[in-house]
Amino acid sequence: MRFNIKVIADLLGIILLINGGFMALCIPVSVYYKESDWLAILIASLITIGSGFLLRLVKRKNQNKELKKKDGYIIVTAGWVVLSLFGALPYVISGAIPSFGNAFFETMSGYTTTGASILTDIEIVPKGILFWRSLTQWIGGMGMIVLALAILPFLGIGGMQLFAAEAPGITPDKLQPRIQETAKRLWFLYVGLTLAEAVALYVAGMGAFDAINHSLTTMATGGFSTTNDSMQLDSPVIQYIVIFFMFLAGTSFTLTYFALKRNFKKVFKNEEFIVYTSFIVVITIVVTVALLFVQDQPLETSFREALFQVVSLVTTTGFVSADYTAWAPFLSVLFFILLFVGGSAGSTAGGVKVIRHVVLFKNSFLELKRQLHPSAVMPVRISGKAMDQGIVYNVLAFIMIYILVFLVGVVLLSAMNVEFDTAFGAVATSLGNVGPGIGEVGPVDNFSAMPMAGKWLLSTLMLLGRLELFTVLMLLSPHFWRKR
Amino acid sequence: MRFNIKVIADLLGIILLINGGFMALCIPVSVYYKESDWLAILIASLITIGSGFLLRLVKRKNQNKELKKKDGYIIVTAGWVVLSLFGALPYVISGAIPSFGNAFFETMSGYTTTGASILTDIEIVPKGILFWRSLTQWIGGMGMIVLALAILPFLGIGGMQLFAAEAPGITPDKLQPRIQETAKRLWFLYVGLTLAEAVALYVAGMGAFDAINHSLTTMATGGFSTTNDSMQLDSPVIQYIVIFFMFLAGTSFTLTYFALKRNFKKVFKNEEFIVYTSFIVVITIVVTVALLFVQDQPLETSFREALFQVVSLVTTTGFVSADYTAWAPFLSVLFFILLFVGGSAGSTAGGVKVIRHVVLFKNSFLELKRQLHPSAVMPVRISGKAMDQGIVYNVLAFIMIYILVFLVGVVLLSAMNVEFDTAFGAVATSLGNVGPGIGEVGPVDNFSAMPMAGKWLLSTLMLLGRLELFTVLMLLSPHFWRKR
Ligand SMILES: [K+]
Ligand SMILES: [K+]
Repeated sequence: MRFNIKVIADLLGIILLINGGFMALCIPVSVYYKESDWLAILIASLITIGSGFLLRLVKRKNQNKELKKKDGYIIVTAGWVVLSLFGALPYVISGAIPSFGNAFFETMSGYTTTGASILTDIEIVPKGILFWRSLTQWIGGMGMIVLALAILPFLGIGGMQLFAAEAPGITPDKLQPRIQETAKRLWFLYVGLTLAEAVALYVAGMGAFDAINHSLTTMATGGFSTTNDSMQLDSPVIQYIVIFFMFLAGTSFTLTYFALKRNFKKVFKNEEFIVYTSFIVVITIVVTVALLFVQDQPLETSFREALFQVVSLVTTTGFVSADYTAWAPFLSVLFFILLFVGGSAGSTAGGVKVIRHVVLFKNSFLELKRQLHPSAVMPVRISGKAMDQGIVYNVLAFIMIYILVFLVGVVLLSAMNVEFDTAFGAVATSLGNVGPGIGEVGPVDNFSAMPMAGKWLLSTLMLLGRLELFTVLMLLSPHFWRKR
Repeated sequence: MRFNIKVIADLLGIILLINGGFMALCIPVSVYYKESDWLAILIASLITIGSGFLLRLVKRKNQNKELKKKDGYIIVTAGWVVLSLFGALPYVISGAIPSFGNAFFETMSGYTTTGASILTDIEIVPKGILFWRSLTQWIGGMGMIVLALAILPFLGIGGMQLFAAEAPGITPDKLQPRIQETAKRLWFLYVGLTLAEAVALYVAGMGAFDAINHSLTTMATGGFSTTNDSMQLDSPVIQYIVIFFMFLAGTSFTLTYFALKRNFKKVFKNEEFIVYTSFIVVITIVVTVALLFVQDQPLETSFREALFQVVSLVTTTGFVSADYTAWAPFLSVLFFILLFVGGSAGSTAGGVKVIRHVVLFKNSFLELKRQLHPSAVMPVRISGKAMDQGIVYNVLAFIMIYILVFLVGVVLLSAMNVEFDTAFGAVATSLGNVGPGIGEVGPVDNFSAMPMAGKWLLSTLMLLGRLELFTVLMLLSPHFWRKR
């Protein structure tokens, strides 16, 4: 037996049970708003829970519980796919999204916390279904915390060891008992921040339903909104609140935990956090200045719009406070590039991640020096520590493969007759789990006009991006399936 | 004395003398066509030769002739800039291009063998000046052969050691006496192929002047044409001849030399050549099939248009046989990506180069394997030989810096209000020394409408791309100017 199929099935079963449980939470919402969809959601929930039980039946007593690396890749990838297959049921059964392809796109966009939508009128969707839509993102964000904390470092994915070394109680090579303790703490933090944002938004004047939904999708850096205008019509205070929580959601949860424990030294010694914050500040200033030239509005409005969009894209949340692609070609290009930044490692953000960019830049500049002095050893240093060359290699390979996957995606999408800028924007925003793109999938548009084949392609890219590429690509490599 | 300024000045003087000599070759052309510009060209030539003499006066007898690595970076970069400053004189003095900024752009585009032009009507430009325009590319190509053969490996630029190891009589660490012999042989080959193409084009029915000019710019992978329609109106036979010579110009000259010596084993063992050829074949088939869907024309026409454009872009020549950006979004995207391929190392082609892509791909796929077996050593193998990890690192850094420079270029150009796709196309085609881009700088357009600041930016990018980035970037690094 090469793979521990029984344990894999058992774990997938557990995932489905949890998912079905979350689904059931939407039934009271539906009932409260007197919508007929409660039945559809109930059926979807029962199918999901039932399938979970069936999968767990595969398990036997006293079986080998050991999981190998290869099992890990399968569980993670299959987990996200299975979630999306069952998560699409409420949309399909209720008829909110009749086509399964569209429903799968919307669900994958949810669990991967991308936030790209095929819904043209969000406000006519029943509340129970909308709540489920927001929950898929929140579940996805929860999954990311444990993934980033424990599973990706265990699989050795693209430099996630970097982050792992910073987390309490974790060594890159094996899962330690303390990991459960740490995961629980960070989940409490995640729940706590979600509640805090919901309360803040409600106090600032947002309706209760919208406040809860937006806080669920903020902390997941998801970006699904319950209104057609996303955050465009909201008050400045609400926008600032959302900015604050998006910023937190794009920060490593471990760091936020340390900050709450008043261990500020850890925070301000963390190079990724410093770069992440400085980058947002610098780009916001640039965008504010650019906006002052092209828009006739008060400084505060320009600053707020700039800050909102920069934070929204850098953290890969994807909320929209204005149609920024209409501002100027310079800002379109800049915001397109921001789709590749990707928040901090250990947050719920998608994309490349700030720490990898830091490694890339440092290594590139070192290479100029290395050329002048070929015999000198010059390791990349992060937060003062010399990095293992193998990890630098891994990070560079990650970024290269990211670019390759991006280009392959653009070629395939353009082969479906999608125009140049739309194809670039749609692929970048899907792979980076951001949400809005440019061109015909810009901030005030959606993905409904994409050809169906394009939707499947983009769903796949969301999954690839969310699972840090290697997890999924590994399964496509013939080497993986070879005995050894 | 940190830099050997006297030898640097002496070498720049020699470069100017040679350049002034080439310039003088245009005087008989001008006289033959009874144009009044012979005087302008004579004056430009005398200024160039005079300046060359002045620079050589700096030299003394018995001085230290030793050149260090740092001197090498300065000579190469300064050489190309000085060439372009003086090479612009014929345009400015004759009034063919009155603005110095425009003339500098056209000249830099010549010496870097880019072929991007600001001339809106090429056919009204006097023949003597047009001949000079073609010659700048041919001189640039000649410079590239010695650069790729000897200087870049000596400076240790981005994996050029790879190619150097294949060239006869060269070791990466120092210039050997045999290098002169090798350079002479390859120059003879360059001259011979240029003559052969000129004769072939003439026999196939092209006028003598056009045949000579097009062969000069083909072998340099330059792409300047003497007609407004580039190669669109030429006969199929002429187009096939040009395709054949573009293919040769994009092949390592060392390999072509071996082939002429009937050492075919060396050729077919060369992994870069195999990938270069297979890539052209595969992409041509894809484009031909795509063209059969979108164009109503015979198979041969579709095949020829596909082959011409693919070879033209992969070899970074940039001749145009049809307005390919109007064909379909898929082909626009594909041709945009081809701007990043960049011919073979050791050819006159610009861009990233096939061999670097091979290293990139192999390393990326190996990284997936390395992840499963972290302790195993898995070097990248090229043509069967394990590559030094330092060189792989250097190649990856090169590609990363290439992408960074590309993105910075796009941001800066878009800040001058150039639209998204035009900015992407203009920067990619300039940095890759190709010539035509997409959008408003597409195959049937030119660069005349670019803002002047954009022209200076693109000129700089052409230089960066031509000199394999590191040569120029090194001069911008504070570390370079520090004593050691
Ligand atoms: K998102
Ligand atoms: K060219």
